[in-house]
Amino acid sequence: MTEQTYKFKVGMSCSGCSGAVDRILKKTQGVSSYDISLENQTVVVKSTLSQNEVFEAIKKSGKPVEAI
Amino acid sequence: MTEQTYKFKVGMSCSGCSGAVDRILKKTQGVSSYDISLENQTVVVKSTLSQNEVFEAIKKSGKPVEAI
Repeated sequence: MTEQTYKFKVGMSCSGCSGAVDRILKKTQGVSSYDISLENQTVVVKSTLSQNEVFEAIKKSGKPVEAI
Repeated sequence: MTEQTYKFKVGMSCSGCSGAVDRILKKTQGVSSYDISLENQTVVVKSTLSQNEVFEAIKKSGKPVEAI
């Protein structure tokens, strides 16, 4: 699968929240890069995974997440 | 396996952090009850799972966690 860019709305209240999402994406195989904005409550992910696979990886954090 | 009580130190900075751990434990099968203290940075879990299984479930949150 070629690399795709996906954007998600993720409920993050503090740097501990965004740090948790960072630690998860850092160790998710197939994720080449990502940008987490605590201010905008968004996570942009470049990955060869499907949108749903990335969604499920972020969802494991226990944070509210939706694809946008 | 009989029910055991395990205690973990979990790095939680805000109610969003503890809420994420709450959402994870709520849907972890084999966990009968738990108590999350943001103030003490602790999570006490009653479960028929092994300590390591509970540890891995909490670790999926992306939070720093250690058994204590």
